Amino acid sequence: MTAADLTPLDDLPLLDHHVHGALTTDLARPEMESALTESDRPVPGWMTQFDSQLGLAVRRWCAPVLDLPAHVAPEEYLRRRSELTAAEVTGRLLRASGIATWLVDTGIAGPGVLSPAEMAAASGARAWEVVRLEAVLEQLAREGFSAAELPARFPEVLAERTASAAGLKSVVAYRSGFDFEPNRPSDSEVVAAAERWLRAGGGRVVDPVLLRFLLWAGVDRGLPLQLHTGHGDPDLRLHRCDPLLLTEFIELVEPTGTELVLLHCYPFHRNAGHLAQVYPHVFFDVGLAINHTGLRSDSVVAESLELAPFAKVLFSTDAYGPAELHHLGAVLWRRAMRRTLAPWVEDGVCSAEDALRVASMIGRDNARRLYGC
Amino acid sequence: MTAADLTPLDDLPLLDHHVHGALTTDLARPEMESALTESDRPVPGWMTQFDSQLGLAVRRWCAPVLDLPAHVAPEEYLRRRSELTAAEVTGRLLRASGIATWLVDTGIAGPGVLSPAEMAAASGARAWEVVRLEAVLEQLAREGFSAAELPARFPEVLAERTASAAGLKSVVAYRSGFDFEPNRPSDSEVVAAAERWLRAGGGRVVDPVLLRFLLWAGVDRGLPLQLHTGHGDPDLRLHRCDPLLLTEFIELVEPTGTELVLLHCYPFHRNAGHLAQVYPHVFFDVGLAINHTGLRSDSVVAESLELAPFAKVLFSTDAYGPAELHHLGAVLWRRAMRRTLAPWVEDGVCSAEDALRVASMIGRDNARRLYGC
Amino acid sequence: MTAADLTPLDDLPLLDHHVHGALTTDLARPEMESALTESDRPVPGWMTQFDSQLGLAVRRWCAPVLDLPAHVAPEEYLRRRSELTAAEVTGRLLRASGIATWLVDTGIAGPGVLSPAEMAAASGARAWEVVRLEAVLEQLAREGFSAAELPARFPEVLAERTASAAGLKSVVAYRSGFDFEPNRPSDSEVVAAAERWLRAGGGRVVDPVLLRFLLWAGVDRGLPLQLHTGHGDPDLRLHRCDPLLLTEFIELVEPTGTELVLLHCYPFHRNAGHLAQVYPHVFFDVGLAINHTGLRSDSVVAESLELAPFAKVLFSTDAYGPAELHHLGAVLWRRAMRRTLAPWVEDGVCSAEDALRVASMIGRDNARRLYGC
Repeated sequence: MTAADLTPLDDLPLLDHHVHGALTTDLARPEMESALTESDRPVPGWMTQFDSQLGLAVRRWCAPVLDLPAHVAPEEYLRRRSELTAAEVTGRLLRASGIATWLVDTGIAGPGVLSPAEMAAASGARAWEVVRLEAVLEQLAREGFSAAELPARFPEVLAERTASAAGLKSVVAYRSGFDFEPNRPSDSEVVAAAERWLRAGGGRVVDPVLLRFLLWAGVDRGLPLQLHTGHGDPDLRLHRCDPLLLTEFIELVEPTGTELVLLHCYPFHRNAGHLAQVYPHVFFDVGLAINHTGLRSDSVVAESLELAPFAKVLFSTDAYGPAELHHLGAVLWRRAMRRTLAPWVEDGVCSAEDALRVASMIGRDNARRLYGC
Repeated sequence: MTAADLTPLDDLPLLDHHVHGALTTDLARPEMESALTESDRPVPGWMTQFDSQLGLAVRRWCAPVLDLPAHVAPEEYLRRRSELTAAEVTGRLLRASGIATWLVDTGIAGPGVLSPAEMAAASGARAWEVVRLEAVLEQLAREGFSAAELPARFPEVLAERTASAAGLKSVVAYRSGFDFEPNRPSDSEVVAAAERWLRAGGGRVVDPVLLRFLLWAGVDRGLPLQLHTGHGDPDLRLHRCDPLLLTEFIELVEPTGTELVLLHCYPFHRNAGHLAQVYPHVFFDVGLAINHTGLRSDSVVAESLELAPFAKVLFSTDAYGPAELHHLGAVLWRRAMRRTLAPWVEDGVCSAEDALRVASMIGRDNARRLYGC
Repeated sequence: MTAADLTPLDDLPLLDHHVHGALTTDLARPEMESALTESDRPVPGWMTQFDSQLGLAVRRWCAPVLDLPAHVAPEEYLRRRSELTAAEVTGRLLRASGIATWLVDTGIAGPGVLSPAEMAAASGARAWEVVRLEAVLEQLAREGFSAAELPARFPEVLAERTASAAGLKSVVAYRSGFDFEPNRPSDSEVVAAAERWLRAGGGRVVDPVLLRFLLWAGVDRGLPLQLHTGHGDPDLRLHRCDPLLLTEFIELVEPTGTELVLLHCYPFHRNAGHLAQVYPHVFFDVGLAINHTGLRSDSVVAESLELAPFAKVLFSTDAYGPAELHHLGAVLWRRAMRRTLAPWVEDGVCSAEDALRVASMIGRDNARRLYGC
């Protein structure tokens, strides 16, 4: 029995349960360099972000999609990219990913960022929305509301805003870290916090009471609730984003029946595996880390398949920006799964059928059941 | 020089320095599913715990012991299991493990759980007891004692209870986590804490003063003291069970000459390796994690052989429940050691003799010296 | 394309950006055993430190340099070592390392420890000094100074002391851990702390205000500032040496333009990779861990090449003591890089040219740019 038996994995239609709209504007080199890192600082002139796992992966796997040989130099890649229209590049990369369904976090929108409907159109796939809790409140503040009505009104607004959404997302990791007091705040605490926030002009929600209010409103809404976890941009303090710090919150949510999805988790993905084993309502992926660890994502994916039952692990790209990231998220995940599973089959410790079934669960079926789509 | 030179590893008689008595009652599917996870929650109906590393391992390595082909479906496995008597299944699996000596933690007893003597009889091996400190105090409370006599009386009770024991065990990880004040409590603190505890009716010891009192009574007793560390059921808070949080306690114990054994440690096993390198009286294993990471236990075992001198690493299964876990703990450890050591020999970086000697130290010899059995 | 294409890696002249002077005194067995561990405790009589990753590596790779077959027994190795002069042994091992430039931390000096100039002479390589901040202040205290003049005088002393140095080093990890208040202390706080310290007789600096004063004086000096991070001797508390705990300090330093270099980082090297990705002025290595994880250093090195751009990763041996450690630091790094990069080339995910360029960046070029030497 050989690894060749795993070739169906290459054609498995994937469900990317957490992604952002692809950016379809033309990209000059500095913008492409910035898209290859979570850093929000300019890439220093004495280095290039192409000298990274993600940079190597672009040259290896995206170049052929644009009719170039693998391993072309970054300049050649960017020249060819600018020869084609941005829409053409985006369409080619998205379609070649083999992703059949996108769950699109619309919390970061902007000019040139595809909406869920546009993602579907560009890729020939289906798309659903994932609504970011903090964005709903910030939008509400722009529209105007009185602090006193927030506890009653926000759930109504959220219900309306998520009428056709597949899930919810929280970025409390970026706004405060996970070492927060996990209990549901009282209405009077929420009103007082909202008054302070509105008086200060609204804007980015960082008040800990409001962040907890949003989390619990999300829990009450009942859709699967995604939480960014682990590595991300320097807005977050990584040691405060270990998912283990959510343990008390996880236990408080358990009786409600709402399911929690820990996103990415690197380098705490083994910790996430523990939580996914012991709590029935906890799921996770290693999304963002797959792109950023590139050729090493095989190890990261393998480590994510230790403690967690296979029904609790999901696939995502967490791609944001140029469609190279959407494409690579799928290419690298398929490669990582193949490299993880092949030795199991070759050593006779599981059948190819079992290995493919596990890949299908993680790549699609678990998310279908969880999000109902 | 090839990996074939490591075949003696398959027949190495092992000393399992931390295990629980096998459960010899018949197991219906829900009970078997629960035995394959550390979760104490019911396994949800939309998933099966057989879709996990441990589930794959049962089908691969336990099925042949019950005369079935490898990879049989779970239903077939359970049907065959129920055809044989529970005693027959247990005996076959224990004997086929090649474990020659069991050190049995008797802290979890109950109907159908084999005692050390019964483990020996069922497996044709030798067995010694490891006594759980918290259980001794809880038993004493059931028999009745006055708080005032505790500081003087407990050491006597413990000496008697452990007259023929190989070691001691603490579950302070579950009861409080490791971020406790590590100094020996005074007699008056202990008496006051015991009074509060007895007044509240005794039961499960969670009072931090009593837990520390037990640890120090264990240290005074002088037998190797095992501490559960890392992954376990949701009673514990994993981030409070990192063995590094024990550093102050470890340093306070050092002058006494008592040896400390960190059990399991996953995902903090590299941290445990640091402690085992720098403190002469610290030992560790990756027991429980071997079963629960299954086919991935080769990586976990390899990671446990980084900083620690080889004389400080031990083998355990930490099996609890059906004898499948006792069997797999040995099968997977042998496989993991073979996969860890084979490249060392194949690349010429150590001789097969050296590799086998390291395996023998970890699988048996280190524990023999440590426990004197 | 095969791994054979990576053979130039074996001859790449390396820049070891953090090392200590080799010890050229004769070593009896207990001293050699102690040199193979970070523990400062005597190695217990029932074990030998040769039964460790580092011990296996000495027998495998240092024995041939002393004209012995690989895998000789420790006694034979030590006998041969004592037959040759200590200078001969040191010269052979240093020269065979292929290290062309040493940046020598002179913070630990003593009889038989080579100075940078002596390292250069013994190895036929170039050497530069890295000055340890705490040692400069402790030396100043021995020479005498008044607390009131410290804020103004220390920068002058440091400028003079580092006139021809390549970099600075801090051991705040050992003296307090990284969970310190990161802001620059005021002059009056520094003077008060210096008064307390001098009144108590000076000696080892552990006062948190003085340690922060030294860090900020180092930042002001503008040379790359190295910080010991992660695994080390039991003077440190490993969980307080996670580089993530430096995040606030890193952000405060960013506007100054001073570059920070996290040394070693094990087992927190993935955390260091995050910091190196998101902060342009953060670099790191896995130096000390390469020797101490021995045959497993391939995994550690591979893990260090996940999130970090390749321009932000450095090579060091952190060797201290017998020249075996200097030699192995280079041998094991070359082996680890070869084992990390070969699959990338064999699987066609990058070209051999790209792989060799990455190796050259990490082994030499990144440090040349950073330290200007």
